[in-house]
Amino acid sequence: MKASRFFISTLKEAPAEAALPSHKLMLRAGLVKALASGLYTWMPMGLRVLRKVEHIVREEMNRAGAVELLMPFVQPAELWQESGRWDFYGKELLRLHDRHEREFCLSPTCEETITDIVRKEINSYKQLPINFYHINTKFRDEVRPRFGVMRAREFVMKDAYSFHADYESLVRDGYQPMYDAYCRIFDRLGLDYRPVAADTGSIGGTGSHEFQVIAESGEDVIAYSDASDYAANVELAQTLPLSGSRAAPAAALEKVSTPDVKTIVQLVEFLNVPIATTMKSIVVEGENGELVLLLLRGDHEFNDIKAEKLAGVKSPLTMAAPEAVRAAFGADGGSLGPVGFAGKVYADYALEKGADWVIGANENHCHYTGFNFGRDAAEPEFVDLRNVVAGDPSPCGAGSLKLARGIEVGHVFQLRDKYSAALNAVFLDNNGKSQIMEMGCYGIGITRIVAAAIEQNHDERGIVWTETMAPFTAVIVPMNYKKSEAVRQAADELYAQLTAAGVDVLLDDRDERAGVLLNDSELLGIPHRIVIGDRGLKEGVVEYTVRKTGETCSVKLDEVAALFAASPA
Amino acid sequence: MKASRFFISTLKEAPAEAALPSHKLMLRAGLVKALASGLYTWMPMGLRVLRKVEHIVREEMNRAGAVELLMPFVQPAELWQESGRWDFYGKELLRLHDRHEREFCLSPTCEETITDIVRKEINSYKQLPINFYHINTKFRDEVRPRFGVMRAREFVMKDAYSFHADYESLVRDGYQPMYDAYCRIFDRLGLDYRPVAADTGSIGGTGSHEFQVIAESGEDVIAYSDASDYAANVELAQTLPLSGSRAAPAAALEKVSTPDVKTIVQLVEFLNVPIATTMKSIVVEGENGELVLLLLRGDHEFNDIKAEKLAGVKSPLTMAAPEAVRAAFGADGGSLGPVGFAGKVYADYALEKGADWVIGANENHCHYTGFNFGRDAAEPEFVDLRNVVAGDPSPCGAGSLKLARGIEVGHVFQLRDKYSAALNAVFLDNNGKSQIMEMGCYGIGITRIVAAAIEQNHDERGIVWTETMAPFTAVIVPMNYKKSEAVRQAADELYAQLTAAGVDVLLDDRDERAGVLLNDSELLGIPHRIVIGDRGLKEGVVEYTVRKTGETCSVKLDEVAALFAASPA
Repeated sequence: MKASRFFISTLKEAPAEAALPSHKLMLRAGLVKALASGLYTWMPMGLRVLRKVEHIVREEMNRAGAVELLMPFVQPAELWQESGRWDFYGKELLRLHDRHEREFCLSPTCEETITDIVRKEINSYKQLPINFYHINTKFRDEVRPRFGVMRAREFVMKDAYSFHADYESLVRDGYQPMYDAYCRIFDRLGLDYRPVAADTGSIGGTGSHEFQVIAESGEDVIAYSDASDYAANVELAQTLPLSGSRAAPAAALEKVSTPDVKTIVQLVEFLNVPIATTMKSIVVEGENGELVLLLLRGDHEFNDIKAEKLAGVKSPLTMAAPEAVRAAFGADGGSLGPVGFAGKVYADYALEKGADWVIGANENHCHYTGFNFGRDAAEPEFVDLRNVVAGDPSPCGAGSLKLARGIEVGHVFQLRDKYSAALNAVFLDNNGKSQIMEMGCYGIGITRIVAAAIEQNHDERGIVWTETMAPFTAVIVPMNYKKSEAVRQAADELYAQLTAAGVDVLLDDRDERAGVLLNDSELLGIPHRIVIGDRGLKEGVVEYTVRKTGETCSVKLDEVAALFAASPA
Repeated sequence: MKASRFFISTLKEAPAEAALPSHKLMLRAGLVKALASGLYTWMPMGLRVLRKVEHIVREEMNRAGAVELLMPFVQPAELWQESGRWDFYGKELLRLHDRHEREFCLSPTCEETITDIVRKEINSYKQLPINFYHINTKFRDEVRPRFGVMRAREFVMKDAYSFHADYESLVRDGYQPMYDAYCRIFDRLGLDYRPVAADTGSIGGTGSHEFQVIAESGEDVIAYSDASDYAANVELAQTLPLSGSRAAPAAALEKVSTPDVKTIVQLVEFLNVPIATTMKSIVVEGENGELVLLLLRGDHEFNDIKAEKLAGVKSPLTMAAPEAVRAAFGADGGSLGPVGFAGKVYADYALEKGADWVIGANENHCHYTGFNFGRDAAEPEFVDLRNVVAGDPSPCGAGSLKLARGIEVGHVFQLRDKYSAALNAVFLDNNGKSQIMEMGCYGIGITRIVAAAIEQNHDERGIVWTETMAPFTAVIVPMNYKKSEAVRQAADELYAQLTAAGVDVLLDDRDERAGVLLNDSELLGIPHRIVIGDRGLKEGVVEYTVRKTGETCSVKLDEVAALFAASPA
């Protein structure tokens, strides 16, 4: 592609509203332009990246045996009413009326549509398993669209749906092949990612993984083993009971005055004790109106997903009202503890083996030091109540955990019969008996991948594309293309040569200053740059630079093509 | 592709709601499935055709120098208000509100969006001309969606928009290259089509052509010369003044009673005269409240687009009220004529050279015979007032006109400054002066092309795809694939061989009866079929059939690949 037949539009400064590096760089590099809040036009440079991602996704989906179709973007309300999601789905589902006042919505996902197709098209076990996918526009009416295409309202998603005669087939023919295909996709895209065990919410079971691109700006925190493939969303990663026996009490229970102490940090400063010797109390409602006390080490983060699953705890998790706390404990939050509390007490595993704790005294502005379970209060039930921290032993049994931030770009999910039962998608099994299909769904955020890749791969000069996602593999930057006959001829010949060799090359023949062309090539993140100038040409050489490393060397003009002989097309 | 890894779903009978052959065949062949009125899922077989059309369109757009981007489907009301179309556009523009009660619409076209992008991105004549296009979903809330994807509500369109410094550039760098690209596209698709001059409505000028695929079921009628490239929508094609001199009157003006005669057909039957000797009268409102009389030959069709453009005729064209007609002519419609009428009279060219006409006598239930202009009433102004008919001389001066029905699949249009002025898309010319851009727009109905191709190319057994649009170029139909080892081996080997040679081949390995496989191959319209059976294999031959002609012959198994050596990939 010659720049004169293309459209390059770069900015020196990103608009003020952009916060994330990827958002800033996508605007500066002219990959996208905002049309309205959460609505973006993919400009020519950005569309090239998007298409390369789509192409890899499509190839790997086809390789895995999935069959492509194309479902409508506008969907009738009836199907969503049948599944129950018309009422359940929040305002992110954009509802509208047609000219005849019939209700429709803009598709945020397609479980209902595909299940409707499958229940009409498939009636025998002989037609199963089947896996349909499409790559299409989706819409979610986010309350606060932000971070550019990372969390846009209109976006492009690849969504696949597999249908099976039984659960074994769902895992063997659907879930696992999709998991593997996703790994191949993100491998080919050149991204640093992890498949992460994820919460299955109301569906239950273990059948859900998120694919997280590792990036500092990620909204998700993931925990992974330094010695195995184990990885999970930090909210899901389990902590293990401590081994060994409990330390013997060494101090007596002593009440100390702690005026103006309201937080653990204040407590630790006031008493000058290590934070790991303190306990904090959280009081929640139980299933039958009574209160439940939850105890954690002072430096640990409470995990409400785990707490909600405890026996006797009300779901959804509900913090106890201040008046109820005062009535039950005789004190307010900040001074609470287990001493004298007659209700159910859960304590985190991390508290099981320690002794001589600092804890609220159930008297305002007072704490105990030297608290010990069994001696000063009944033994609680020890459970997993907290988020894992770096260094925790991995629940897989191998190694210890590390933490990283990630951006979710893919999700595979065993839906089981959630939609197939609601929409009555049945088939006749090999005994002629009607059975409900097992179903899986598998999503990839095509547009989000572009932003995530930039979050992971950029520097102070701009984007650093991987080979397979780059809008162009190489850029030829001629110095004085318009005025120097020698430069123009060399650039045109090299361009023709590389194009003929199948290299996706941009010849930047714009009539701009050298500085602009060089800066743009770095901002645009094109992996390989060849600068052609009169001075080098006199010696038959050009300047070759690798964007990622910045390495620069002189290369003979007639040896440039050889540099790309082994590079991916 | 092996059928066992694909999804084929054919029907013996089309659902009753399908009227058009293409709609019936698309449903029977499983190319699309209705989700709701005017909303279709493109099933795997149909999507392959759609993608092939897209691919050819994209290649030719790129070749013509257009640059691809991707604009959002959901568009903010503000831009449509700025152009004035928010109020002007009818209910086909589906309007909706987001969760914050802001107004949006589903894109039926993108003039506003692209003009907004261009006015922000382009400010110098040096950046012009530029031609942007995208291929994306569109929505038009048709009051009665029908004919399947021919007139769906959600559809796929390629729309391009070019911007220019002046009108010469619009024609030279935008309109003409797009016109040529469209010809290449429809040539490559293998369709019988015609570029047809079309009405430019309120924009004026001559800069609009429709691309019509010739098909009996087409909604448009086009007129074309049998001796030149001239073609126009029948409503636009001009008639010419007759040559030669007027015949001399041979009969006297005579009033005859015509009781119960209300139509030209009744008049002709009652008086037993040739219809071409009769005149009919149409009375319309003039610009200043007076009435204008329009005269046509009895067998000709009135053309209201032409009439509306006549001097003194009110626009939009308005038929005169019955009371006003009675007051001015002394009679009602069905008995009107020019004798004694003092107002403006326009007569169609076809009336200029004839004599002794039959015409209404301005007295109910009475007509004149032997009417002659100049003798019995003043000479009228002779103009073009009618639709052309087959056999009319072509307005280009060469040959005579033929009529055909067509399906509009493309449209190129010189918009001039309609949107660029409304949205203030200006640039600085080479004198530093601010100028409004000239603009063109160019659309192709991607999904409609698929239906139009079937309308043009089908027979009683099914679809007859052209080579370039077919979902598969060839199909291998093995007889007894599951049971015959020899057939299976030969089919698998041929499949591997053709696939390796780049032939887009389907191996129909479904466990179905031979009749089903053979009928499906014809219904699906795959251009080349190779049937492999045990009997033929004993002699080393297979049966090769060309779908279009039905020609069948025996071919040696090892010579099949050679059949495709010269065929398009």
